[in-house]
Amino acid sequence: MPIQMSDPSGIERALESKKGPADADDLSALRERIRHSASHIMADAVRAMFPEAQFAIGPPTEDGFYYDFQLPRALTEEDLSVIAEKMIETIASDLPFERRQVDSKTARRIFEDQPFKLEIIDNIADENLGIYTHGDFSDLCNGPHVDSTGQVKAFKLLSLAGAYWRGDENRPMLQRIYGTAFESKKALDEYLTRLEEAAKRDHRKLGKELGLFTIHNEIGAGLICWQPKGGRIRSIVEDFWREEHLKRNYSLVYSPHIGKSKLWETSGHLEFYKENMYSAIDLDDQEYYLKPMNCPFHILMYKSSLRSYRELPMRLAELGTVYRYERTGVLHGLLRVRGFTQDDAHIFCRPDQLEEEVRGVLELTFSLLGAFGFKDYKIYLADRPEKHVGEPSEWTRATDALRNTLEEMKLDYQLDVGGGAFYGPKIDVKIEDAIGRDWQCTTIQFDFNLPQRFDITYIGDDGQQHRPFMVHRAILGSIERFMGILIEHYGGAFPVWLAPVQAVIIPITDRHLDYARAAVVEMRSAGLRVEVDDRSERMNQKIRQAQLEKVPYMLIVGDKEVAGGSVSVRLRSGEDLGPIPVTSVIEMIREKVETKA
Amino acid sequence: MPIQMSDPSGIERALESKKGPADADDLSALRERIRHSASHIMADAVRAMFPEAQFAIGPPTEDGFYYDFQLPRALTEEDLSVIAEKMIETIASDLPFERRQVDSKTARRIFEDQPFKLEIIDNIADENLGIYTHGDFSDLCNGPHVDSTGQVKAFKLLSLAGAYWRGDENRPMLQRIYGTAFESKKALDEYLTRLEEAAKRDHRKLGKELGLFTIHNEIGAGLICWQPKGGRIRSIVEDFWREEHLKRNYSLVYSPHIGKSKLWETSGHLEFYKENMYSAIDLDDQEYYLKPMNCPFHILMYKSSLRSYRELPMRLAELGTVYRYERTGVLHGLLRVRGFTQDDAHIFCRPDQLEEEVRGVLELTFSLLGAFGFKDYKIYLADRPEKHVGEPSEWTRATDALRNTLEEMKLDYQLDVGGGAFYGPKIDVKIEDAIGRDWQCTTIQFDFNLPQRFDITYIGDDGQQHRPFMVHRAILGSIERFMGILIEHYGGAFPVWLAPVQAVIIPITDRHLDYARAAVVEMRSAGLRVEVDDRSERMNQKIRQAQLEKVPYMLIVGDKEVAGGSVSVRLRSGEDLGPIPVTSVIEMIREKVETKA
Repeated sequence: MPIQMSDPSGIERALESKKGPADADDLSALRERIRHSASHIMADAVRAMFPEAQFAIGPPTEDGFYYDFQLPRALTEEDLSVIAEKMIETIASDLPFERRQVDSKTARRIFEDQPFKLEIIDNIADENLGIYTHGDFSDLCNGPHVDSTGQVKAFKLLSLAGAYWRGDENRPMLQRIYGTAFESKKALDEYLTRLEEAAKRDHRKLGKELGLFTIHNEIGAGLICWQPKGGRIRSIVEDFWREEHLKRNYSLVYSPHIGKSKLWETSGHLEFYKENMYSAIDLDDQEYYLKPMNCPFHILMYKSSLRSYRELPMRLAELGTVYRYERTGVLHGLLRVRGFTQDDAHIFCRPDQLEEEVRGVLELTFSLLGAFGFKDYKIYLADRPEKHVGEPSEWTRATDALRNTLEEMKLDYQLDVGGGAFYGPKIDVKIEDAIGRDWQCTTIQFDFNLPQRFDITYIGDDGQQHRPFMVHRAILGSIERFMGILIEHYGGAFPVWLAPVQAVIIPITDRHLDYARAAVVEMRSAGLRVEVDDRSERMNQKIRQAQLEKVPYMLIVGDKEVAGGSVSVRLRSGEDLGPIPVTSVIEMIREKVETKA
Repeated sequence: MPIQMSDPSGIERALESKKGPADADDLSALRERIRHSASHIMADAVRAMFPEAQFAIGPPTEDGFYYDFQLPRALTEEDLSVIAEKMIETIASDLPFERRQVDSKTARRIFEDQPFKLEIIDNIADENLGIYTHGDFSDLCNGPHVDSTGQVKAFKLLSLAGAYWRGDENRPMLQRIYGTAFESKKALDEYLTRLEEAAKRDHRKLGKELGLFTIHNEIGAGLICWQPKGGRIRSIVEDFWREEHLKRNYSLVYSPHIGKSKLWETSGHLEFYKENMYSAIDLDDQEYYLKPMNCPFHILMYKSSLRSYRELPMRLAELGTVYRYERTGVLHGLLRVRGFTQDDAHIFCRPDQLEEEVRGVLELTFSLLGAFGFKDYKIYLADRPEKHVGEPSEWTRATDALRNTLEEMKLDYQLDVGGGAFYGPKIDVKIEDAIGRDWQCTTIQFDFNLPQRFDITYIGDDGQQHRPFMVHRAILGSIERFMGILIEHYGGAFPVWLAPVQAVIIPITDRHLDYARAAVVEMRSAGLRVEVDDRSERMNQKIRQAQLEKVPYMLIVGDKEVAGGSVSVRLRSGEDLGPIPVTSVIEMIREKVETKA
């Protein structure tokens, strides 16, 4: 029985999970059908424009659909309008989608002038192939689709792109049209508004504009360099993270970034996860691997001495930077990278401590995420899948601990039946950002696999050896990805406690410079992050610059302010608070920092 | 002209530097002669015991000497006494050391029954070989030696070990005797006392006893896992380091642990430093290397946008973990490892900012190191070596900046003529630990090489492109090594601000447990690191345990304390402070933390 162990910690898996809640599933399934149907309608419209078009694939995606074509000429933006017009006609005709099953021979005949379809047919072992037809357009497809074209209530063609056939750069470059479709005009409009808002907040764009991070071709794709301003924010997030963990009696540990191949054999990574690992490093006739996960290190640290029931729970926490192979094509700014820092912890505990530990992690989760202004959570409890390791009694005990804790804490959650990892049940938490998008960050996972593989134990109060329960958990998920989410959540306007520069002092003329510099010294020695804009620019230009940099406070200094020992405070919202004594401004800013307002 | 670029940042080189100050050089040279002579005297004594002995090599070392022999039987500790007796006789005879030069043919005849010596002779191209003789014992040797055996005023044979001939495990295993010798009995005794003290403080021993760190064969040699207690100390050191850097307007940046081979070609590492680098990692037909240094990353971060003179100085600081290949044999606990975290920073500045920057780094150095109780510094200014890159005018300017700053700060320093790196002049600082040993930690190095290789510039106030000055600097050196030094410096008894557990509350009986637990909660919420020893052990046993763990405060709780809202305070020195109210104890500990007492 080959057990797929794609991710023993489950963290990355959880990060990438697209699974929606059960009651959203209906809507999500409807949209998938609408979008898949819109894709066919679009292909039909392209055929009307280019009868010689060759069709590759046209699937629905999370937020829309696309179709890849080989066409006699490059598409233009104007073509999209023509295609859309034709689609509107097809939708207005409300043509039924009809499905039939054919054998591969029949399919080959139907698509005899469509080489991409023929290649797809060649690659399907099944002799029973689905064909969907609306009007006189047929496509090789397993569906499902809506009943008729009229059910595509609202759509929009979004963009053009190039895409290699089968993603292989040695195969033909095709033209791809991206679009989206919804069950109503209203839903589409909401989506487009959010898309526009999201584009403004794109962390890659803001990251560059605000000098937060860079990715260098000379270093490698998916590898992040945190520039001074981004590094400052990251260090504040990490300091906060460490503080909150120490308060809750976690231990901060550090482990290396590489380990011998034998370690990854014991953990099972080389057997089940190798495709996600970087290639081996040879050293003194030994193979070493960059760590894709921290777990084996924490387990060895646990195992380094005989453990007593008195030492449990042991909560080993580390901001551990791991490296995982991702294809270049799927890399995306900070959200999908090749090197990232997990806010990882492994809790080793006794059976009687399970619920308290789960509660502790959930409380820490809401406390940490709440500080960043995330208040809406979607919680999923995933229980035993068909293929699993571990005793049923352990699964029951752990799943009960998760469920009981959620219920005692009166938290709403969705049950994801059979959705647990093969190695244990889990809770996943999604947060909703400022523009209503969901992000999976937190995961709390039991593991019945690694404790067994590494044979870890503790001596109970009965003097006997017992196997501890082990919980993997990450709250922010990955620091890089979480920073990407934060940039988009705040639209780059970081709250005062996180802002890399909290205030800029703007002297109106050079004769106010000395005063401005003295104020900077005073504010900095109060622990604030303050700069002075001493360029020979006009005041308005300086204000504009500070606005662009999204600095929370602009402190303007002219004759009046110098005379009164004050600064004129302007917020990045544009609001003017007028002249305020420097000491009061310090108090004001510190209060914002302390309350994380 | 092959330029050896063994270490562009110079940091590791500096860490390993054994160079002493000029006025200590005389003593150091005398000791080398004494020890080399003692080695011959010992070989002579071994010959007296085993006429058939075969002699390999017998060099002086930093702290003593050794000689390798092939003998008919294994030596015992008792043999050492016999050998030492014979040595005392030879020394008492005050035999002169006489040197002569012979050709290799003569040398071969002299050592015809000494196969190791013959092999050495075969490997020397020079036809002119040195022979030193005292009494009737001659050795192939270039000296120098003392004038006569009587000048070896004090010696001690220390230990026995096995050593392969030429360090090659395929060659014969020889027997090695280690010893040391000094110019006076007093100096020897001081050394032996320090040796004994150092053995007690050995960070490997204390690291294990105090649960600070582990090294796992499963992970790899020279790779450190920081266990909870060591991790706590490390995180306090790092927090302090970050705080002090931020106060001085450094920027905290983060860079990845790997980079493409092209980057290491540009930096010159692949050409000149490859033997110290881990082997390549293959990824998408590209070679990546684990970083042995952070410099190229910081340079690319500097280079990621057009820089103006207004942005300088730019101080990029990172606790950057680097990996360097070291032979297994030279690895030593935390002091010599394969993965370590440099407390690295690169300062990019204008010529007019040089002195202020050097002063800033030196002030930061004394402030950081001073906090750990290091007060005695040895400072070395190393100027231009024969082989170097960079313009003479740049060398002069940078060396002047270093010298002027040292002089303005009225710091004693030794000039190390020609001792700079090929890429720039530098200041190195050694600290003296609690038992008088010197440790090289801090290095401040100009670099005229990398700015050129990466072609970095800034736009001056004249609107023209200029090359910035670049300074590499590390103050603690490597966190791992510095932690090793700290463990030995403090002998494991960390001061209160660093102690992983600051206080243990010891209830005398179970009926004092509730009170003890309430006190723990109170003290922890005041930010202190406090545990309660709730084991069913006798009080004395608990005190003993806390002493072993070198916990600064033992807080004993019995009926009297419960009644009085106090704890009886006992220091790890054994001193009893009697009962003190819990709130006052909190104040007392916090004051120690704040003052880093």
